[in-house]
Amino acid sequence: MPVNLAPPQPDQLLPVKGVSLGIACAGIKKVARKDLLVIRLGEKARVAGVFTQNRFCAAPVILTKQHLASGKPVRALLVNTGNANAGTGEDGLARAHRTCTATAALLNCDAEQVLPFSTGVILEALPVEKLIAGLPAAIDDLAENNWSDAAEAIMTTDIVPKAVSQQVVIDGVTITVTGIAKGSGMIHPNMATMLGYVATDAPVGQAALEAMVRHAADRSFNCITVDGDTSTNDSFMLIASGTAALDEISDSESAAGIILRDAVTEVAAQLAQAIVRDGEGATKFMTIQVAGGQSREECRQIAYAIARSPLVKTAFFASDPNLGRILAAIGYAGITDLDVEKIRLYLGDVLVAENGGRSPNYREELGAAVMKEPEIRVRVELQRGAAEATVWTCDFSYDYVKINAEYRT
Amino acid sequence: MPVNLAPPQPDQLLPVKGVSLGIACAGIKKVARKDLLVIRLGEKARVAGVFTQNRFCAAPVILTKQHLASGKPVRALLVNTGNANAGTGEDGLARAHRTCTATAALLNCDAEQVLPFSTGVILEALPVEKLIAGLPAAIDDLAENNWSDAAEAIMTTDIVPKAVSQQVVIDGVTITVTGIAKGSGMIHPNMATMLGYVATDAPVGQAALEAMVRHAADRSFNCITVDGDTSTNDSFMLIASGTAALDEISDSESAAGIILRDAVTEVAAQLAQAIVRDGEGATKFMTIQVAGGQSREECRQIAYAIARSPLVKTAFFASDPNLGRILAAIGYAGITDLDVEKIRLYLGDVLVAENGGRSPNYREELGAAVMKEPEIRVRVELQRGAAEATVWTCDFSYDYVKINAEYRT
Repeated sequence: MPVNLAPPQPDQLLPVKGVSLGIACAGIKKVARKDLLVIRLGEKARVAGVFTQNRFCAAPVILTKQHLASGKPVRALLVNTGNANAGTGEDGLARAHRTCTATAALLNCDAEQVLPFSTGVILEALPVEKLIAGLPAAIDDLAENNWSDAAEAIMTTDIVPKAVSQQVVIDGVTITVTGIAKGSGMIHPNMATMLGYVATDAPVGQAALEAMVRHAADRSFNCITVDGDTSTNDSFMLIASGTAALDEISDSESAAGIILRDAVTEVAAQLAQAIVRDGEGATKFMTIQVAGGQSREECRQIAYAIARSPLVKTAFFASDPNLGRILAAIGYAGITDLDVEKIRLYLGDVLVAENGGRSPNYREELGAAVMKEPEIRVRVELQRGAAEATVWTCDFSYDYVKINAEYRT
Repeated sequence: MPVNLAPPQPDQLLPVKGVSLGIACAGIKKVARKDLLVIRLGEKARVAGVFTQNRFCAAPVILTKQHLASGKPVRALLVNTGNANAGTGEDGLARAHRTCTATAALLNCDAEQVLPFSTGVILEALPVEKLIAGLPAAIDDLAENNWSDAAEAIMTTDIVPKAVSQQVVIDGVTITVTGIAKGSGMIHPNMATMLGYVATDAPVGQAALEAMVRHAADRSFNCITVDGDTSTNDSFMLIASGTAALDEISDSESAAGIILRDAVTEVAAQLAQAIVRDGEGATKFMTIQVAGGQSREECRQIAYAIARSPLVKTAFFASDPNLGRILAAIGYAGITDLDVEKIRLYLGDVLVAENGGRSPNYREELGAAVMKEPEIRVRVELQRGAAEATVWTCDFSYDYVKINAEYRT
């Protein structure tokens, strides 16, 4: 069961002017299931994205990058579930291209103005006819208040749809940021993917938008791990529809830029955390903070070593305050000049280890009380600098093995 | 249950002249359990070792390194189970030192001529009085044909004792190599450790011995993973007693050196594989070969990405030929210029993927048949160089979670 994660209330999801969403059941893998989403953008919209670093990059990801690079204004994003079109070679690229051509014909734009995204089974051919046959219904459905249905349409094995809205005021103008995401492992069994789409009505220059999407990704989707595996299809897209009555934000570090960037980052972080809360077999949500490092990178390295360790994750599942496993993970994180005598380790607010060993005031009951909670904070203080990093993860349960061992049986 | 791993037959374990072993039940954690081992070395013996890279390095490991660095001839190795003396700070060092002093007094040598090793619970004080009280019984027990009991004495949660013997002929002289090891995860729950001790009667110069232990470790204990965690106590020691009637081997790359080095490596590799076969919850033994790389390092990186992936490991547990998970792991291994179109992936002898996707001749039944076997070979051909590397691992089962979640409950 997801950890403290309720489905979004439709009325809490605020429309973003200039961004309409249309959903259809195309029968790509299952019948009568929402599996197709078209996001249509208005004239002034700009789009930026970050993508999987996996060398086995799926066909739609390759095409989306090419279309963005063409510099033509994006008119639509096309998302299907049920098939990831990954590990499909040249044929996969051709099929992804056909979906763009068909969408472009219906929306009266160029194929390069459509960005395709796929998630679902990998190594199988995309049923492109079914997808194309579903397009008219999706386009008929286009509306600005469809975010809730859109969040549902992009789910694969997610248990709960993930959507977040926020508003900020910039120069007296109320700006909306609304986003949806899917994923419940970094990669699914045969399913592949984390997808995230965040839109704002603020007008933003292309360079500023690209800076914002990287900033937000580094503090959200790049700070989570369920099982340490990276998908072939991961994509996070930021859309600025430019419909708000505000001067264009051309610098993400300006006063207005920072307000918007932080709102986008907050929405992305909530979506990323929702993915972890809905992680395969998750029963606990853990926040791993590493502070006092020489660089953000070394803090991330240590936080990920803890967050990825199967031994740490099974201990959290068992509510066992097993300090040795966390200390060992810190020790093998690869920071060769780390002085372990200086490290302070906290479980929640309880100081559990210092001076290279157990803290003298620590008692097992104190740690055990923290470990029983569904939300647990682990804090590591390195005392060698001012940098810090946070990673979110979930525990490792019987159900993780069950879900992943039995997925195809 | 361990995968194809029978306990060693005592009569197959050949004594190494000049190396005697004594075992006792010191009651360190449990009563009436063999938990103390003294390995006494003759006058001509030389010792070299490789140790954990974990920054939380246990007290006995620190002391063993110091004693080796003193250059004084090693007279004895002292191993206890039941307590790892790790995460114990200055007090842990003092306790480890006391065990050396006590052993040295009984064997009439300096404390620096004794190398201490501990494995078991971490973050708890070593019960040094119990250990010292057990020493006379262990020393009374010293005998050259005690390898089988010694293999048993160093076990913690291992199900099967691990010991291997081999003989080679060098310049007409029969040389023996016998070794023991323990470990059934890279690190245990609260237990820490992989320990390996390999002895030969060949006379070997110190520099050659050090080269051999590194060579063997890189092809054995450094090629395995159960859960990707690295212990605070891992040690692998190579002993050359120098009792065989052979000229001293002063170069590990000489004809004689290579014969011995390869025999030591083979014994170490069999011990390392035994650790994986006895891996926590293991039901399958996997050999991951990556060939055709530009460097051994990149081949290892890819092999480890596959071997560590929880998704790959649960698929093997389920006997599911889930190619997507293996391809995804190759893709995120961190080789940024990898051309995935060139990669060929084999399950056993079945070519399953090529040209960036599923092989045209591959059928699910072929993969499924391979996956049902208890021993599975995965071979990745990168086609970009001549380097290769092999990693051994086991699958990820319900029992892995059970063992690690319930260890302290």
